[in-house]
Amino acid sequence: MGEFELIRTVFAAAPCAQGGEGVALGIGDDCALLDVPFGEQLAISTDTLVAGVHFADPCDPFLLGQRSLAVAASDLAAMGATPLAFTLALTLPTVEADWLQAFARGLNHMAQRCNVRLIGGDTTRGPLCLTLTVFGRVPTGHALTRSGARPGDLLCVGGELGNAAGALPLVLGQRNAESFIAEPLLAHYWSPQPQLALGQALRGKATSALDISDGLLADCGHIAQASRVRLLIENERLPISVALQEFLGDAPAQLAALSGGDDYVLAFTLPPVELPTLLGDGWPIHVIGCVVEGQGVGVLDAQGQDITPATHGYQHF
Amino acid sequence: MGEFELIRTVFAAAPCAQGGEGVALGIGDDCALLDVPFGEQLAISTDTLVAGVHFADPCDPFLLGQRSLAVAASDLAAMGATPLAFTLALTLPTVEADWLQAFARGLNHMAQRCNVRLIGGDTTRGPLCLTLTVFGRVPTGHALTRSGARPGDLLCVGGELGNAAGALPLVLGQRNAESFIAEPLLAHYWSPQPQLALGQALRGKATSALDISDGLLADCGHIAQASRVRLLIENERLPISVALQEFLGDAPAQLAALSGGDDYVLAFTLPPVELPTLLGDGWPIHVIGCVVEGQGVGVLDAQGQDITPATHGYQHF
Repeated sequence: MGEFELIRTVFAAAPCAQGGEGVALGIGDDCALLDVPFGEQLAISTDTLVAGVHFADPCDPFLLGQRSLAVAASDLAAMGATPLAFTLALTLPTVEADWLQAFARGLNHMAQRCNVRLIGGDTTRGPLCLTLTVFGRVPTGHALTRSGARPGDLLCVGGELGNAAGALPLVLGQRNAESFIAEPLLAHYWSPQPQLALGQALRGKATSALDISDGLLADCGHIAQASRVRLLIENERLPISVALQEFLGDAPAQLAALSGGDDYVLAFTLPPVELPTLLGDGWPIHVIGCVVEGQGVGVLDAQGQDITPATHGYQHF
Repeated sequence: MGEFELIRTVFAAAPCAQGGEGVALGIGDDCALLDVPFGEQLAISTDTLVAGVHFADPCDPFLLGQRSLAVAASDLAAMGATPLAFTLALTLPTVEADWLQAFARGLNHMAQRCNVRLIGGDTTRGPLCLTLTVFGRVPTGHALTRSGARPGDLLCVGGELGNAAGALPLVLGQRNAESFIAEPLLAHYWSPQPQLALGQALRGKATSALDISDGLLADCGHIAQASRVRLLIENERLPISVALQEFLGDAPAQLAALSGGDDYVLAFTLPPVELPTLLGDGWPIHVIGCVVEGQGVGVLDAQGQDITPATHGYQHF
């Protein structure tokens, strides 16, 4: 069996490449075919991960497969979409069966969690790089965009912030930590949990939403710009894990929560009237600020003083 | 303006990123949103092009943009789909405004030709590499797959073969040729014309179809395998351009037509009864063989002798 054939076989045989709601034709033809139910739109997002830029090289292929799909599926969560399928474009310097099998297991693991099917892609030789395109369905006109935030809305997030940024020195082997600190931080980095159910629960309630990939400040800036409003964050209300606080200390942990990327927690704006029901239903919602007239993003300390940091987040260029 | 912002601006402002049938939400949110008409399915294909593997590096960015989209859209043609949209994942070592502008112009040029809109993607730093995912619509159940060829069908192609393979020594600067030879060959390589209209005309008529990217023999092998039939190619009937014949000579030109990749011409199987109408309508169809019972692909000379070459096409691994 040639190397090309090997790759095709590994992915075509993967559990996540079998069947699936809405998948009329999967891997193996010039195109895959998707059925989109009447009254629904297709949500589409593309994410690229480059070795040495978005993940350490070498790294554990199982964790890489798992994380790649989680990062991509998180964009579906941010739109309130229900995952259907994904394509994988994988560029590899060499083909190693063990690496491929482990990568496919990681992909399968996250695909099962997200209920999403691998329907196609491409495999090429070159520097290690992955591009995933994910597809979801959402009732027509009900997707959560970035442009609907209104003055008076609450600014909320769906979970703790800064854990993935805090994990980076551990991922890169620059620091060590005891397991009660290292394990939860590394879990957030390698196995982010796309907040798909929360995204769907927010449809018709949240006025805007996104997933935090560039860092809270930078991503809130995207909502502020698209909605033409100002977002105010109260520094003291940022949800920060015990592990992060123990690992970094108070002030650096707050900075990680504000500016660190890769959290893949939802940030959204919500009319106050919607909050009690969502909290009553048990959704992990933290109110961290509010929407006002104006533009940009501000951070306030407990006394209401502006303490907005100068830089907002991570930029690839 | 930061480099990241520059890229975003160039693509968001590109003519091919504006409006478009079926595009409910384009560039700028977590996902794009597509409307798929009732009674139609969405066809999806992903292609990756790596610098130094799929194209020379450096190369003309206009031609690269144009060719990348043509290669991807050709998979829609092969399914008989009508193009709707595409995403672009672009990995760049450095950001140069002139390069980006020229690349975007090339992309625009082909996007206009294919009537397809840029709806999203990702831009990352790393070794030069592009992944395009294209979306088209096709009436439910009427896509042209690889699996319907039946004994008795004719084997056809939609145009001349081998021109792109013939152009390679020119692209790589290994040989020169007079302009009446070089120009048509290079045009085929840099500006392949996805046979979108032909693909749509073949819906309900062809029993199988694909676009020739790996080479005629290798791609016919895909139809033979998916349809569980044998495909016979008559060597003397291969449509070969005057330029290719002049450049390579008779036998090497035939080998280029059989095994050279990157032609992006459609290959398809057709019940004989369908041929007269299609030819009468002026479609550029060349009958090059037939479908019989059995498996694999055979090549016959003018005397009916089996002259099948040992290797079938280009493999990335």
